[in-house]
Formats: sequence, structure tokens, C-alpha cells
Amino acid sequence: MKHALIAAVLGASTLLVSGGALAQAKPEVLVKQRQAAMTLQGKYFGPLNRMATGKAPFNKDSAVRNAGYLEVLSNMAWDGFNPSTKNSTAKTRALPAIYENEAKFKEYQNQFKTGASALHAAAKAGDEAAFKAAAGEIGKSCGGCHDDFREKR
Amino acid sequence: MKHALIAAVLGASTLLVSGGALAQAKPEVLVKQRQAAMTLQGKYFGPLNRMATGKAPFNKDSAVRNAGYLEVLSNMAWDGFNPSTKNSTAKTRALPAIYENEAKFKEYQNQFKTGASALHAAAKAGDEAAFKAAAGEIGKSCGGCHDDFREKR
Repeated sequence: MKHALIAAVLGASTLLVSGGALAQAKPEVLVKQRQAAMTLQGKYFGPLNRMATGKAPFNKDSAVRNAGYLEVLSNMAWDGFNPSTKNSTAKTRALPAIYENEAKFKEYQNQFKTGASALHAAAKAGDEAAFKAAAGEIGKSCGGCHDDFREKR
Repeated sequence: MKHALIAAVLGASTLLVSGGALAQAKPEVLVKQRQAAMTLQGKYFGPLNRMATGKAPFNKDSAVRNAGYLEVLSNMAWDGFNPSTKNSTAKTRALPAIYENEAKFKEYQNQFKTGASALHAAAKAGDEAAFKAAAGEIGKSCGGCHDDFREKR
């Protein structure tokens, strides 16, 4: 009750909405957290993509480890793209178009998640052809989403 | 096309230094990546710790999901603490003491990893007593490591 009252007074976007497990973080925190997920996706996809494109030799142990991490990370960024962050003071290149075309944004997320799962499975199986195909799908989801929904530099 | 895609995914600042399989990222990139891991650890440990300390009711689905993420994340920060980052221009509160007492630093890492695995197992088993104990261990590893190796504000 107290939490509901505080939320009503401060506005839903400001602080924790309830005593439950789905507490809502401040917009600046959400931006920081989603950017952190993007940073780590880049950290682990980088070496995977070098293997997939022949810039580094395929190493099964490294591929399984990194793709396993990437598969888990592929779930972490999306709840940070909350409409409350549109007016955040945090520096972000995320475009408001995200909230005007959520179906397309969700489609990219799903393409990425499906690709990351396929990449992990291919790495475990040591199937280099499937590994390359999955890395290509991931690259398309990243590039497409950035083209549509990220401010150009 | 391919290069443009890779650049879009990784961003110009994260391009790696060498062409080898074990390419070493720039110190500034390592700092950003390890801070990203810390940010996400906080994102998922926050709700878990609220459950463990009775500030939120225990919710098994949420606990399993978050603890599963935390277990994977508990592996991601440590390779970013490379001695090359001591002279990085990136803003960091990590103290040089890390590289003078690596055994102790490693001990905290292991305490955290063991705690995160135990937390995930306890969540899956719905064992609230074990869940609280594991969250306590994690809290100790975070606090101890920050006390010893992070600059005070």
C-alpha cells in the first residue's frame, strides 16, 4: 500500500512500483542496464563472428563458451527499452521509433534470440556450416535493428 | 558490406588490436566490458536479494530466471581486470591493489561464482533457506571485494 502511494505521488516512472518481484527501475538505470547488455553481447559475439567469417580458426571450446554466454545475454537488454526512457537524461542513441513500431523491434529481438540459440547448438555439435549460418542471422538482426532504431553517428 | 555490418555490431571503439584468436582488447574496452558485467550483476542480484532478505515475497519463477542469469554473469567480469587497464584513461574505481593481491581477488571471484551456482540450485529446488544462505554468501563476496579493491566514494 505504501509503495502504491509513493508511486502515485512520484509518478510510475520514478521509483519502485510495488513490493513484488517486478520492481521498476529509474529510466537512467534502465538505459545503463540495456547498454551493459549490448556491450557484453559485443564482447562475446566479436570472437564468435571472427570464427564464423574465417578471421580466426574455429575453436570448439571457445565457441561453446562464448555462444552459451551470448544465448543467455540475448534475453537481457529488452526490458530496458521502456517508454519511460524516452525522456531520460541518460545519453542514448536509441530512437523513439522503437516505441512506435514495437512489433518490428520485437521481431529483431526474436531473430537474435533464435540465432543465438542456434549458434550455441551448432557450437556444441561442432557443426561449422550451421555455426556460420547462425552467426549470419545474428549479424542481420543486429545490423537491421541498429539501422532502424539506433541514431546514426 | 560485411565490414560495415561488423562495425555496426561492435562499434568503432571496440575493434580489437590483433588479428589472432586471442585478440586483446584495448584497456578502455576492457574497463567498459567489466563495468557492464557489474551493472548486470546488480540488475539481477537486486531482486534476488530483496527476496532473500524478505523485502519481496519469494517467487520461484523469478528467482530461477534471475539466479540463472546471475550464475552465467558471474563469469564475465574477471578477464576485464587486466594489468593493462591500470593506466587506462577510462574512469574506474578499481584499485591497483587488485594486481598486487591477485590470490585474494580470485578468492572473492570464486566465492561469488560458488554462491551464484548455489543460489540458482536453491531457486530451482524452491529451498528458501538455502536460497537465503547463498544470497548471503554472494553479498559477502561483493562487499568484501568492494571494500578491499574498489575506491571509496
